[in-house]
Amino acid sequence: MRSDGRSSSQIRPVVMEPGYIMHPEGSVLISVGNTKVICNASIEDRVPPFMRGQGKGWITAEYSMLPRATGQRTIRESSKGKVTGRTMEIQRLIGRALRAVVDLDKLGERTIWIDCDVIQADGGTRTASITGAFTAMTIALGKLVENGVLAELPVTGFLAATSVGIDPELGEILDLNYVEDSSAEVDMNVVMTSEGRLVELQGTGEEATFSRNQLNRLLDLAEEGIHTLVEHQKSVLGDWASHIIKNLEKEG
Amino acid sequence: MRSDGRSSSQIRPVVMEPGYIMHPEGSVLISVGNTKVICNASIEDRVPPFMRGQGKGWITAEYSMLPRATGQRTIRESSKGKVTGRTMEIQRLIGRALRAVVDLDKLGERTIWIDCDVIQADGGTRTASITGAFTAMTIALGKLVENGVLAELPVTGFLAATSVGIDPELGEILDLNYVEDSSAEVDMNVVMTSEGRLVELQGTGEEATFSRNQLNRLLDLAEEGIHTLVEHQKSVLGDWASHIIKNLEKEG
Amino acid sequence: MRSDGRSSSQIRPVVMEPGYIMHPEGSVLISVGNTKVICNASIEDRVPPFMRGQGKGWITAEYSMLPRATGQRTIRESSKGKVTGRTMEIQRLIGRALRAVVDLDKLGERTIWIDCDVIQADGGTRTASITGAFTAMTIALGKLVENGVLAELPVTGFLAATSVGIDPELGEILDLNYVEDSSAEVDMNVVMTSEGRLVELQGTGEEATFSRNQLNRLLDLAEEGIHTLVEHQKSVLGDWASHIIKNLEKEG
Amino acid sequence: MRSDGRSSSQIRPVVMEPGYIMHPEGSVLISVGNTKVICNASIEDRVPPFMRGQGKGWITAEYSMLPRATGQRTIRESSKGKVTGRTMEIQRLIGRALRAVVDLDKLGERTIWIDCDVIQADGGTRTASITGAFTAMTIALGKLVENGVLAELPVTGFLAATSVGIDPELGEILDLNYVEDSSAEVDMNVVMTSEGRLVELQGTGEEATFSRNQLNRLLDLAEEGIHTLVEHQKSVLGDWASHIIKNLEKEG
Amino acid sequence: MRSDGRSSSQIRPVVMEPGYIMHPEGSVLISVGNTKVICNASIEDRVPPFMRGQGKGWITAEYSMLPRATGQRTIRESSKGKVTGRTMEIQRLIGRALRAVVDLDKLGERTIWIDCDVIQADGGTRTASITGAFTAMTIALGKLVENGVLAELPVTGFLAATSVGIDPELGEILDLNYVEDSSAEVDMNVVMTSEGRLVELQGTGEEATFSRNQLNRLLDLAEEGIHTLVEHQKSVLGDWASHIIKNLEKEG
Amino acid sequence: MRSDGRSSSQIRPVVMEPGYIMHPEGSVLISVGNTKVICNASIEDRVPPFMRGQGKGWITAEYSMLPRATGQRTIRESSKGKVTGRTMEIQRLIGRALRAVVDLDKLGERTIWIDCDVIQADGGTRTASITGAFTAMTIALGKLVENGVLAELPVTGFLAATSVGIDPELGEILDLNYVEDSSAEVDMNVVMTSEGRLVELQGTGEEATFSRNQLNRLLDLAEEGIHTLVEHQKSVLGDWASHIIKNLEKEG
Repeated sequence: MRSDGRSSSQIRPVVMEPGYIMHPEGSVLISVGNTKVICNASIEDRVPPFMRGQGKGWITAEYSMLPRATGQRTIRESSKGKVTGRTMEIQRLIGRALRAVVDLDKLGERTIWIDCDVIQADGGTRTASITGAFTAMTIALGKLVENGVLAELPVTGFLAATSVGIDPELGEILDLNYVEDSSAEVDMNVVMTSEGRLVELQGTGEEATFSRNQLNRLLDLAEEGIHTLVEHQKSVLGDWASHIIKNLEKEG
Repeated sequence: MRSDGRSSSQIRPVVMEPGYIMHPEGSVLISVGNTKVICNASIEDRVPPFMRGQGKGWITAEYSMLPRATGQRTIRESSKGKVTGRTMEIQRLIGRALRAVVDLDKLGERTIWIDCDVIQADGGTRTASITGAFTAMTIALGKLVENGVLAELPVTGFLAATSVGIDPELGEILDLNYVEDSSAEVDMNVVMTSEGRLVELQGTGEEATFSRNQLNRLLDLAEEGIHTLVEHQKSVLGDWASHIIKNLEKEG
Repeated sequence: MRSDGRSSSQIRPVVMEPGYIMHPEGSVLISVGNTKVICNASIEDRVPPFMRGQGKGWITAEYSMLPRATGQRTIRESSKGKVTGRTMEIQRLIGRALRAVVDLDKLGERTIWIDCDVIQADGGTRTASITGAFTAMTIALGKLVENGVLAELPVTGFLAATSVGIDPELGEILDLNYVEDSSAEVDMNVVMTSEGRLVELQGTGEEATFSRNQLNRLLDLAEEGIHTLVEHQKSVLGDWASHIIKNLEKEG
Repeated sequence: MRSDGRSSSQIRPVVMEPGYIMHPEGSVLISVGNTKVICNASIEDRVPPFMRGQGKGWITAEYSMLPRATGQRTIRESSKGKVTGRTMEIQRLIGRALRAVVDLDKLGERTIWIDCDVIQADGGTRTASITGAFTAMTIALGKLVENGVLAELPVTGFLAATSVGIDPELGEILDLNYVEDSSAEVDMNVVMTSEGRLVELQGTGEEATFSRNQLNRLLDLAEEGIHTLVEHQKSVLGDWASHIIKNLEKEG
Repeated sequence: MRSDGRSSSQIRPVVMEPGYIMHPEGSVLISVGNTKVICNASIEDRVPPFMRGQGKGWITAEYSMLPRATGQRTIRESSKGKVTGRTMEIQRLIGRALRAVVDLDKLGERTIWIDCDVIQADGGTRTASITGAFTAMTIALGKLVENGVLAELPVTGFLAATSVGIDPELGEILDLNYVEDSSAEVDMNVVMTSEGRLVELQGTGEEATFSRNQLNRLLDLAEEGIHTLVEHQKSVLGDWASHIIKNLEKEG
Repeated sequence: MRSDGRSSSQIRPVVMEPGYIMHPEGSVLISVGNTKVICNASIEDRVPPFMRGQGKGWITAEYSMLPRATGQRTIRESSKGKVTGRTMEIQRLIGRALRAVVDLDKLGERTIWIDCDVIQADGGTRTASITGAFTAMTIALGKLVENGVLAELPVTGFLAATSVGIDPELGEILDLNYVEDSSAEVDMNVVMTSEGRLVELQGTGEEATFSRNQLNRLLDLAEEGIHTLVEHQKSVLGDWASHIIKNLEKEG
């Protein structure tokens, strides 16, 4: 039994609140247990210099934590004058993951800016960010369709992320909270589509190693979690979810 | 009549939600109209180097906006690698204002870190930050009293802040929203105690000037607004408000 | 009696030496007591990006202190690699103040760069900077008129600044030197026109508060000081002072 | 057939030149095809602040590329004044990987600094860095044993890394060079022990996804590559390889 | 004939004004023609970390130019957030030069901070800085002797600096102003003692080369200039000049 | 006798390995004793902004050391976030020196980027960099001639550099290694053409001074060293050396 009473394969309660902030084209407050992230999606009508003139769009992400999202206050990156390696890793991951399920040609020369701001952290902030950002991004892209800017929603599938890990006592577990994450021997972040295809897989032994059998059991757990998360996305996205399902059927 | 239907002397709806974030010693989400700021107060058991050995405490503040708190996305200060002049001005103002109503000797060699993070902006973010930060700080200091670390609450009075300005058509108005702030000829931020004493007064003619009569009318409006804000603080602070009132009586 | 023998309402000796540095279009060394600031004004034939194409000019200011302008050597901001919050506040204040008395439309798409470099500090460096910068700027603008670049002097009035404060023993005093500034309970910088209209008002209780009556007495003192400073400006500016007086009469 | 004539499962020629630079405690020039990395290991007799007093050691890595390691000259990170996200990701990966096969308790309060400087790049620089760094680190640790500072070699197993990927035409391939890497749909870096246990797994779909079957074929290829790399390490390490084998037997 | 009427071997008018700024232990405004530098010397009662515990002193220098010291306004290094290579070269040169004529053992564990701030530039700012800094430093060290902190003046000789160069038309010339410096083919800065011994020699062909004969003629000119500069130093230093002469006689 | 058995006028063994790195247009690994520097030359088809439209080329250099090029590990400049003064001095020196022997008009609007990366240091890294960089640059320029981009090699002479110094016991010596450099009283870097003309001369007394006679003896030694270095350049450059000799004859 885990410290918060969950079974090994049980994900924490998930809530997504669309329209949380009024200004962005897409905005979602996602809670996964006590982890809470404001995910905002902004549309800019141009692409970065290295992309210009190709007729393709781009998706880029930024990630940050409020100083007291954590138990101990952490120093602001703006005060330090630089972004930490951890932050850079996470924002590169979020951008890459979302680009895997958007048809950038159909997006046209536009940039989608994703801002994930963790206001409360209890483990799994990067995977909650991806799951929430996918939802906020789809809402923002939906507006482009509504306004007639785009002919159809350029989202090719559902995308969600979760963490799995190996606990020294419980073995493989799904959706680690902060305490579990701190003591896990293996920590793995999995980004997957609703079809069960892998987009990103980042597994790390923390002063430890893991076998291919363990890897397979971790991926089984992740698939279950992703399934649940996608169900939440579908219910929040409503009509736009149907559009994605049609896109999936066309491609399938 | 103002664009949102308010009279000249009417403040926007104010809501303060205590305990908004779970980790900080004090946490308040303050909304003044559409302006929303998470105000967190953290206690650190030491003071900055220049204060050490004097037996006195210190209060310092940081202020930031989420990129999409605003209508147009603003670049993160962490990405720019430096804090802007505007941010520095605001965080120095917040810290200075709060230090005026805390007995730093009674606080002892502790630092209170105030973090004001604007998640949605519609004018008056710095004054909402001060009003919310006072509340979060008092809650955090209250915990030190509850835990027996401090013998009594070292808060010497209520403190709130609001903005006033001169509209080219309406004249003096209270609590400017973003649209009003953009067109105002004179913009003034007022930090006051519940006793009507001034703590900070920052008035600026934007390519304009103002007379001492206009100054007096602006201060009258500010006093009304501060009164309303303090009433909200009292209802959120409950017992701790009574402690402050006793402190005021002792001094008076 | 104040430590340097002045009465409460007495300003320190003021000297302005025009043409102090040979390269700038306008250059003044201002001394207010022992506070000495080199104020240089440079004309650039373009405006910053956010102003382009509006046919309007811009005024921007930078402020710095030599390391040994002060009793203790302070570290250079270039060595620290960043400008402090205090410096940013001051340079924003200087620019804003000057813009209030220049007709930016008449200036055309030009930038006036103001550089205030404190070579010796004894309190009141920001207000001395504004008073000297106004003079240097007017000289530089006068050259544009002399050279036929501008048809008339775009300065709409005289502008000067001084500090006032509340001494724990002497009460309200005018033009605080460093020692007085360090012990003052309330510190206020006032930027005013020769007509007695306010441009900037920044009053701060240092771990203290002040009443509206005290505010009024402080503003009375400030008006007296400003009057003296403007007399000095007039005598240094000669013919250009007459131009400003004519501009004032036209508007009046 | 691949562009350089290799089969899908064929690794490029590997050379490791120990003692390449004279000053470091361990130094190896590793070549994997045209990719060349100088891997230096330095021993410092203390640990970073967050590790002090625990009696444990630490391993940290830095990675850099010469500007003309690449076909187009890249700007130096020292000129830019900051380390890129890509560099940070890589140096965090190298450090984490090495820490998985060193008994940090046996190392004692010492830091091993790994410097991987790519002097010529043709794909796979981060995996070549890990493979070379393991060798340089073991040589440096061997010196501590020779000098009697450590009683035994604190290396618990062999560790090497390679890349695998999915080519749009050839399917799964081992050890991608720069051209292959640029066109691959899926790119995966695998860090493994000689026992076939995973230490790090980082798989990324580049605007693409991959199935679990594909993942398994990629891991099969990686295992083959790792096997070859470890054979090279053994031949370079000589006696120290025997020590590691003994450590493995003890644990097994 | 040179553009300002001087002969090839003629130095510009030199003025040194001691006590120019009131706070520093030593302060000199030096003018060499139109080049004007405020040279301040500060005494700090400790040495930098790398010098501690050796009983020796240290001398370090900082150099800066006001933005309008030059004909075109230059951007402040504090605004750029970094010190340029040119500035670093100059401040390293000033510090090194002064250390050559101070007995650092006799100075004891103290640091002399030299600040050279160019308020008006017309060529030769770095050599004027050295000549003025020597004078300011000697005044500051004299105060330590007067106050009984040091038993004797630790200055072992007079030190001054000047520039020489090769003009495409006039050949070798002494003490180049800005216009001459811009067109010179060879530019050389010479730091020398009153005894004619070299301390620093920095000669540069600007897309040109020079022979050893030319080098010798340049050094002859430099010696003459240094002689004149030292005479000025002696007259400003008064009694302290006699102390230095005695120190020279002791050593000679 | 020197510590490594050389006579006072003996240079260390010199080796230059052309084509060391495959990507750059010109690449040389130069060894002078144990000092080893990778010198890469890159051609860019444009010049920096301040040079545009003049039809002239530019040469710029960057210099860096690997952290373990030295006995003690030095911190990377990219980690510090800034380039040190020493590095800036050296890279400015390298660029300036090379520009003295290239006809920038014949080069046309192109930039030559020189990268000198010290992989192993034992004194004289800046002079070895210049000698190697000249060779790499000539190879790169030769390619422009081979490809028909340039009609002739725009190199007007051979250029090499060495260090000389005054040892407290041995007097004047040539080509100081690290140990000699650390104890030398005078340290001088000399950049010369094959014709014996000076390009750069930087002599420094380290808390010491030197006479003009000593200067002359140092320059005699330097000439000998430069002669040897140019012989090595000629043998590496082959045909391109003949081109330079023809250029020299034309000018002579």
